[in-house]
Amino acid sequence: MTGWLAVAGLGPGREDLVTPEVSAALAGATDVLGYIPYVARVAPRPGLTLHPSDNREELDRALHALDLAAAGGRVVIVSSGDPGVFAMASALFEALETRPDLHRLDIRILPGITAMLAAAAAAGAPLGHDFCCINLSDNLKPWALIDRRLRLAVEADLAMAFYNPRSKSRPEGFVRALETLRQLCGPDRLITFARAVSTPDQVIRTVRLGDATPEMADMRTLVIVGNAQTRRVGPWVYTPRSAS
Amino acid sequence: MTGWLAVAGLGPGREDLVTPEVSAALAGATDVLGYIPYVARVAPRPGLTLHPSDNREELDRALHALDLAAAGGRVVIVSSGDPGVFAMASALFEALETRPDLHRLDIRILPGITAMLAAAAAAGAPLGHDFCCINLSDNLKPWALIDRRLRLAVEADLAMAFYNPRSKSRPEGFVRALETLRQLCGPDRLITFARAVSTPDQVIRTVRLGDATPEMADMRTLVIVGNAQTRRVGPWVYTPRSAS
Repeated sequence: MTGWLAVAGLGPGREDLVTPEVSAALAGATDVLGYIPYVARVAPRPGLTLHPSDNREELDRALHALDLAAAGGRVVIVSSGDPGVFAMASALFEALETRPDLHRLDIRILPGITAMLAAAAAAGAPLGHDFCCINLSDNLKPWALIDRRLRLAVEADLAMAFYNPRSKSRPEGFVRALETLRQLCGPDRLITFARAVSTPDQVIRTVRLGDATPEMADMRTLVIVGNAQTRRVGPWVYTPRSAS
Repeated sequence: MTGWLAVAGLGPGREDLVTPEVSAALAGATDVLGYIPYVARVAPRPGLTLHPSDNREELDRALHALDLAAAGGRVVIVSSGDPGVFAMASALFEALETRPDLHRLDIRILPGITAMLAAAAAAGAPLGHDFCCINLSDNLKPWALIDRRLRLAVEADLAMAFYNPRSKSRPEGFVRALETLRQLCGPDRLITFARAVSTPDQVIRTVRLGDATPEMADMRTLVIVGNAQTRRVGPWVYTPRSAS
């Protein structure tokens, strides 16, 4: 009974962005759990049980994984990107809080290429100076808090990476965010929409805030807003290393 | 003459955190440039010229790489971590600004596991909610700006990842940062010191701000300060996904 549990980041999509550490964990696993499209990225093989589950079932999935590992399984929960950035690692620790009997289980978090790093690389280097990373979904926090964070981030002149900018069910949040940013940063600030980064569907588009429209983002889009220094060079967008 | 230039992230140190994309670029390169300890991670082989250079020579290195690629070389600039986070990608684009004749050169930025993701994974999930990422070095910006960003990040209740917390030549910045954070966040806020993450020298230590001392950080340390919700569970530290 030497079970273990790894929470692994599969990166943004392309297979050559999966770290060898994660590939090795998957190769040694008896059970893989995760959101349906992420589990679909793991090849079936004898001895491996795949447990795809729906979105918003993170806590149940984490408890199931803890039980499988406690029973001796070699268990991997897969996330896209990095598991520690708006993904399954925090959900696992929330589940672990309810199970003090399992606090000494062999748990490892395996980092991955999170979407903002792949998006920034595809666009150039818009996160090359101090930046922040904000989840625009208001599933788990009130919109007023998101709005306050946007305003303070602009005041600090941080570049900004936005995850989950726009859901079908609540598209109005991103409409408001764009309007706020345009007011505070002016129309010339650069904004990059990176859709389906590293996949065959990848589209990278950088425009002025004055030309940005909410429809440029969907749930597969990572949005990066530059700081006051962010600029274009050739086909690229980047943020200089220095500031005054 | 089909030269290209890649700026590649080697990750924080361990070889199984280097992406296959980066390994493939290195395998096809004629020239590898970078800071001495990063170039030392690339195995010599026939047909490959290694060009190690000193720290703080980033612009010269970038210009040299551009010239080599323009002459037909297959050139990789290596960074530790991710090239777009306080590393060589921005320096390359600064150099490219001075060379409009090379704006259409085949340039690719290859993402890597940046130190904060590996540090967070080793500690648990302290960056599991909105966070910011700040370079504490005042080489390229005034300390007053760093101080302002710290205060606004606390006001926004962002978790914080700090790169380059403490240089030998100017250790006083981190002393002041710790004092400011203690005043604003109180003594019970959790702070994680992740030294030499993913290497054989790795040490991960999480303490209360009231127990943190400047000596806990050096230039190989990535520091993470939690938000107001960040807490321990078993041997781990994590930030819950929700906030009010």
